Amino acid sequence: MNGTVVLDGRACSRQVRSELSEQVARLRGRGVVPSLRILLVGDFAPSQVYVRNKEKAGMQLGIDVAVERMPGTVAPADVERVVDAWNRDPGVHGAIIQLPLPEQLDRHRLLGMLAPCKDVDGLTPASLGALVSGRPGFTPATPTGIIELLVRNGITLSARRVVIVGRGELVGKPLANMLLLRGERGDATVTVCHTQTRELAEVCRSAEILVVAAGKARLVTGDMVSPGVVVVDAGTNSVGGRLVGDVDFDSVAPKASAITPVPGGVGPMTVAMLLSNVVKAARTAAAASGS
Amino acid sequence: MNGTVVLDGRACSRQVRSELSEQVARLRGRGVVPSLRILLVGDFAPSQVYVRNKEKAGMQLGIDVAVERMPGTVAPADVERVVDAWNRDPGVHGAIIQLPLPEQLDRHRLLGMLAPCKDVDGLTPASLGALVSGRPGFTPATPTGIIELLVRNGITLSARRVVIVGRGELVGKPLANMLLLRGERGDATVTVCHTQTRELAEVCRSAEILVVAAGKARLVTGDMVSPGVVVVDAGTNSVGGRLVGDVDFDSVAPKASAITPVPGGVGPMTVAMLLSNVVKAARTAAAASGS
Repeated sequence: MNGTVVLDGRACSRQVRSELSEQVARLRGRGVVPSLRILLVGDFAPSQVYVRNKEKAGMQLGIDVAVERMPGTVAPADVERVVDAWNRDPGVHGAIIQLPLPEQLDRHRLLGMLAPCKDVDGLTPASLGALVSGRPGFTPATPTGIIELLVRNGITLSARRVVIVGRGELVGKPLANMLLLRGERGDATVTVCHTQTRELAEVCRSAEILVVAAGKARLVTGDMVSPGVVVVDAGTNSVGGRLVGDVDFDSVAPKASAITPVPGGVGPMTVAMLLSNVVKAARTAAAASGS
Repeated sequence: MNGTVVLDGRACSRQVRSELSEQVARLRGRGVVPSLRILLVGDFAPSQVYVRNKEKAGMQLGIDVAVERMPGTVAPADVERVVDAWNRDPGVHGAIIQLPLPEQLDRHRLLGMLAPCKDVDGLTPASLGALVSGRPGFTPATPTGIIELLVRNGITLSARRVVIVGRGELVGKPLANMLLLRGERGDATVTVCHTQTRELAEVCRSAEILVVAAGKARLVTGDMVSPGVVVVDAGTNSVGGRLVGDVDFDSVAPKASAITPVPGGVGPMTVAMLLSNVVKAARTAAAASGS
């Protein structure tokens, strides 16, 4: 661990939120109160916790957060009515449909309904499409937070070999597309691995920056990384009631030049980037209305 | 070249078009004439040729193809009116906005207007977004053609190490996303390289399947590939009036187990896949209207 930098997501998130807090104060001074709406369907316990965290963090910044709770048995039309009302309400700047949704609700259909200018989770088809073609739009919070954490810690992405383990819709795939964009937050040579990858260890060892978002506790071990690698662990697995990452920290950290812990790494950045999107949405809406 | 298979795009395209021709005949037998509309703005010479090719190939299959020609100075509102009319006309199954467009036209805005169910080029934000999240939708013709050519030649993609050189919006990036989807047309371990990539040769040598779509004549040479590699050349460069690929065929082919020629490789597949999307759009529209 001699010289290994532990990338402190909590400190970085505090810094981002402190900057956002100033921006919110300025907006409020002009009569604009950034507002976030969250749709929470059913009583899936982890969702309750995530939504509570977003609510608390948003309110601390001076963002107006309201949670619309609906029973797990709600009819699709009732949910659509809520999304539609949010789309049409100029006082709503950002909106989140908390996933997962119960079976009767088609998440792609609902996400497709949400106005892209309010899609602070960056998960609507239009937002993902904009991402692939490199146009401005909201990007998903977790990959955005990973890039922010690296950039703020002075880690160069451009021309580096990045290996992403995991091809999920929330982290792996959007992150790959973001890192391929031009500019200092991209320009990386990107490899994406997943459950079908043969010789995962060999591919991981080719990484200068390794991002693991596979959803499998301690999948990546010390023998699978090269000395000096930068490791980002986006895993959140519950093992024996404890939050554990996808990286075996104890064996990987001694070989890494920098590594994120779990908890306290990527997690805190996710909420900060979501709130950053809400503030951006409010600023854009205010500019458009001339406030 | 002993034992190197030359992947014949012309033959493969003929096979695809012959299958499509049967499908069109069946649709016409039920009173449904698959129809394609192409918007061609200005007089950019290569676009004239591409559009002519699409028109000819479509008509050979029995598809009703009409080209809407507009002057290079056309006002955005006039173009939007055409796209809007196509969206609302149930007799139009597929529509293409031929790129590039003159400066006064915002291609992202126009593409964003086109109904995703008619977007046979697969380039609207909604289609690209669907691609990232693995939902059904039209995929761009060139990457779809590359996958079709490989699959029809019995080349396994699943679990193979694919290196893509080029991160363009038309080939590299959509292909990367497609190859990461689950199933036998995906499940590959994918690396994307580009102009910022260091040690391009080393990355290319790690490929079992190498796809080059960089837009740079003869960028990949024999010393940059490993023996037995499958090479797909999506380049179309004009050198001294001759069509030349991104791969130096003469030095690469002897090391490859299979390779596409230029011309006669990826090119013919592109038009075939576009027409396949038109037939699919017509079938879907016919099923929805009960024809």
